[in-house]
Amino acid sequence: MKKDTEVNLMHGAGGEVMGELLQTLTAFKNNNAGGIGLESLDDGSTFTVGGKTVILTTDSHVVKPIFFPGGDIGRVAVSGTVNDLSVMGARPIALTCAMIIEEGFPIADLEKIVASMDETLGEVGASIITGDTKVVEKGSLDGIVVNTAGVGVIEEGGFLIRDRNLAVGDKIIVSGTLGDHGLAIVSYREGFDLGDQLKSDVAPLWKMIEAAMKAAGNGNIHAMKDPTRGGFAACINEMARKAGVKVVVREDTVPIRESVASAGSLLGIDPLQVANEGKCVMGVAPEAAERVLAALKSHPYGKNAAVIGEVVEGSGVVMQTRIGGERFIEPPLGDPVPRVC
Amino acid sequence: MKKDTEVNLMHGAGGEVMGELLQTLTAFKNNNAGGIGLESLDDGSTFTVGGKTVILTTDSHVVKPIFFPGGDIGRVAVSGTVNDLSVMGARPIALTCAMIIEEGFPIADLEKIVASMDETLGEVGASIITGDTKVVEKGSLDGIVVNTAGVGVIEEGGFLIRDRNLAVGDKIIVSGTLGDHGLAIVSYREGFDLGDQLKSDVAPLWKMIEAAMKAAGNGNIHAMKDPTRGGFAACINEMARKAGVKVVVREDTVPIRESVASAGSLLGIDPLQVANEGKCVMGVAPEAAERVLAALKSHPYGKNAAVIGEVVEGSGVVMQTRIGGERFIEPPLGDPVPRVC
Repeated sequence: MKKDTEVNLMHGAGGEVMGELLQTLTAFKNNNAGGIGLESLDDGSTFTVGGKTVILTTDSHVVKPIFFPGGDIGRVAVSGTVNDLSVMGARPIALTCAMIIEEGFPIADLEKIVASMDETLGEVGASIITGDTKVVEKGSLDGIVVNTAGVGVIEEGGFLIRDRNLAVGDKIIVSGTLGDHGLAIVSYREGFDLGDQLKSDVAPLWKMIEAAMKAAGNGNIHAMKDPTRGGFAACINEMARKAGVKVVVREDTVPIRESVASAGSLLGIDPLQVANEGKCVMGVAPEAAERVLAALKSHPYGKNAAVIGEVVEGSGVVMQTRIGGERFIEPPLGDPVPRVC
Repeated sequence: MKKDTEVNLMHGAGGEVMGELLQTLTAFKNNNAGGIGLESLDDGSTFTVGGKTVILTTDSHVVKPIFFPGGDIGRVAVSGTVNDLSVMGARPIALTCAMIIEEGFPIADLEKIVASMDETLGEVGASIITGDTKVVEKGSLDGIVVNTAGVGVIEEGGFLIRDRNLAVGDKIIVSGTLGDHGLAIVSYREGFDLGDQLKSDVAPLWKMIEAAMKAAGNGNIHAMKDPTRGGFAACINEMARKAGVKVVVREDTVPIRESVASAGSLLGIDPLQVANEGKCVMGVAPEAAERVLAALKSHPYGKNAAVIGEVVEGSGVVMQTRIGGERFIEPPLGDPVPRVC
């Protein structure tokens, strides 16, 4: 395949095509501070301070529209960074907030975004401790973009969780319904009215994940990742590929809201390929699976959690369908919904 | 004054007007993780891990053009974050890199930016350990923006430095010529040819500052800040105001390149009001000033360092002019050069 000379939208869509661009963007020699580095392409990276493992992560947020059913760019920004720390097992401590704002942006909207970020932080006990503001001329940005970076620590009794350590025998658990965020965004943009059910799941997951880790016991959550751009399909394929294992998913156990499934059918979009902003995917030691599931279900953000499959030897991800067949869940070339986070 | 309802360019220009917007943007209740928090508006903030003080900072970079005499957006992004950590006395350890890229952006330019960032990191032994990439539709961003966040630590034998602790009797030291970056950018944009001398000073200062701290001895650099947006004038006024002191500067000791002074005259721009990207301003205990000056001068980025004034009781910043008069150095309403970093 001819190498692209220009960046295109698929390069930022969280799927297979993005990998090409990442080769350019991860060509740093100075890419590691003595822990997990840039080369790992995990949800965050690590280094050590005073004997403690510190996790660092960042995301820029360009979601359109900035206010949508179930959330806004501020809640997405804080949740995205909190969740990247949380899926690595780290308590979120301190976040940064850097905004680039287009001239003419309403200050009342800024106030709403700040209030929403603050509320989201409050849910998990994290803080925004430093920030930056740039303003650019009208026409050189459409509205606002928000970058958040975050620092978390692995606490006493906690444990570092990677996205690459699925083990044969693990139960695959998802913390709730899949596809809500992506289909809420695209349906809202298209002007569809699909009832109150169709709204983003955007939420900060630390408290739920903390409870799951405690229930699991040290190390029994083998791998975890949040299924953002490219959705569950991109997430589970990346996890399987990195671990060199196969994942078998049973279709009848995968939680998808009826409204999300309907919107997906209408728009020709697979709910498994679009972003979630308040979900995680885990590979859990089989003996701990029931305890972890119960802990997830006891938290509002995990009430629809389910065991949806397991890890076996081999490669790829297959879905056992309701009618007894089997099909691959392919890694998407890119999320079909642009500007989703 | 009527409160603005929309964001305007002056809100992002690093001067007095920016303060109004910052009231909105710092209205977080969750703003502190047990150290220096958002409310301090210092170059970075702090929290404690394993008994060590960790510094966290962030900047988004929107400089236009992205390649300019003396540097590029990549060197600005790494230097900006490295310097925000360094002026607080922290060794830069780990940085994040989050890029938002416009569809159609040349991949060859991305490669140049990454190589430049990598070279800048290498100068100070820091690393980019995690990142994020978003791509947006053509027309919704002009080219690329780069966010970097950074984490540093106060080392054994080092000491935390704030921007607010100027003390009466302190010598004011600048690490080199003032106004280079801002006037290089604006002259280049305007198409002026003012010779090879007029180029950005953008540089990562940790090694120079580390040497100055060692020469000073524990705590003898009382206050430090990097004079970015709004230049030396904004920087020194903020330092004086936060400490409740007056600063007296002697005009004949302020290092300004002839080419920068010429360009400033031509364009009607005061070199003291535009951004520097490779300079710092210090308040140093008088008994340590000569040692610190010598240490700065021994580093290539500090070879034009100078003692330019001192701290006295009172308020404001005054310049003793060459002809024996005195005038205020006012805090600028905003940097006269937009999109400078």
